[in-house]
Amino acid sequence: MRPGWSHALQGRFIVFDGPDGSGKSTQIRRFVQAVRDDGTTVTDVREPGGTPIGEKIREILLDPANVEMDVRCEMLLYMASRAQLMVERIRPALAAGHMVLSDRFISSTLAYQGTAGGLSPAEILSVGDVAIGGRWPDLTVVFDVDERVAAGRLSPLLDRMEQKGAEFHRRVRAGYLQQARERPDRHLVVDASKDPDAVFAQVIAGVTAHWPR
Amino acid sequence: MRPGWSHALQGRFIVFDGPDGSGKSTQIRRFVQAVRDDGTTVTDVREPGGTPIGEKIREILLDPANVEMDVRCEMLLYMASRAQLMVERIRPALAAGHMVLSDRFISSTLAYQGTAGGLSPAEILSVGDVAIGGRWPDLTVVFDVDERVAAGRLSPLLDRMEQKGAEFHRRVRAGYLQQARERPDRHLVVDASKDPDAVFAQVIAGVTAHWPR
Repeated sequence: MRPGWSHALQGRFIVFDGPDGSGKSTQIRRFVQAVRDDGTTVTDVREPGGTPIGEKIREILLDPANVEMDVRCEMLLYMASRAQLMVERIRPALAAGHMVLSDRFISSTLAYQGTAGGLSPAEILSVGDVAIGGRWPDLTVVFDVDERVAAGRLSPLLDRMEQKGAEFHRRVRAGYLQQARERPDRHLVVDASKDPDAVFAQVIAGVTAHWPR
Repeated sequence: MRPGWSHALQGRFIVFDGPDGSGKSTQIRRFVQAVRDDGTTVTDVREPGGTPIGEKIREILLDPANVEMDVRCEMLLYMASRAQLMVERIRPALAAGHMVLSDRFISSTLAYQGTAGGLSPAEILSVGDVAIGGRWPDLTVVFDVDERVAAGRLSPLLDRMEQKGAEFHRRVRAGYLQQARERPDRHLVVDASKDPDAVFAQVIAGVTAHWPR
């Protein structure tokens, strides 16, 4: 990348999303490092959690003991954590000119609790808009990967979300791809089945094409 | 009351709401006992909480350590607890023909996080409709009391909600009264500054007038 390539990302809100095992955590680390090395300040956050209150909500969400959790309750807990993250971390960082990178966001809720979980996307979008006070991400990078490839990358110790079956994970993947089809101006789909260097090259190419210097 | 007076309440969803110190807990106990004595099965629930997951959410909401909680996060946590209560307790009880009595419901969120907390009632109603899957209470009994009378009834050990100031509590009261004015067909306002017997008489008279035999 040419020096200064990342300056167009100042004040931008970017989400990296995709199923567990898609390799997005590795890509987040590399991307954040590359942007910082270029001199742009980054605030990176993760969902659910990212704030002291959000971490307490995260404990409820990921506890395998809470198997009887209704999908509406689950969706609202994710949204509550997100609302706090927005006010406490994301908005102040954007206002200070940082690039904000979030590991998961409303796109995860649309895929997991919506397309895969049975809640209507319209209901999730309407609750989501209230939760984030209308500040939607500028770009969501979707790490697309076959569910068998993803499963092969996961640890055998699975949390509550990861314990769901293969059919569920096929629907999650379909949910992400549907969002990208519906709003192509705000999504970038990368083929995450390739090796990390090839995936990273797709990310950089896609992001720089989205915000040309 | 004449024997059988409560049978019209079978399968009905009733909420008792009002500020802390309004005496609604005492009235709930008396009302539930009177309905049971008349032979109608009652499921009584409380908010936030009422389910194992809801009790964990309640801990986050009422912990005085969480002072930095954003009002949107707070609202969504109440809604998450409510969604679980709806699916796990309220809907099955109504389907079995019970009268369901809830101590607080969306009316509390409208008063505390809406009118008093600054969130738009339209946003709360829209999130609430998703949280409860469209099953709104049939009747909400509002225990109306001057904030000074209410404060005099409270313990000096206050939780996070109770610690807010007098102006906040004036707005809470105004919020309840506004809801009752906007939907008079679904609200019953009782003067809760009177002694418990007089308040109870108002409750019984109002409820039986709402569902005449």
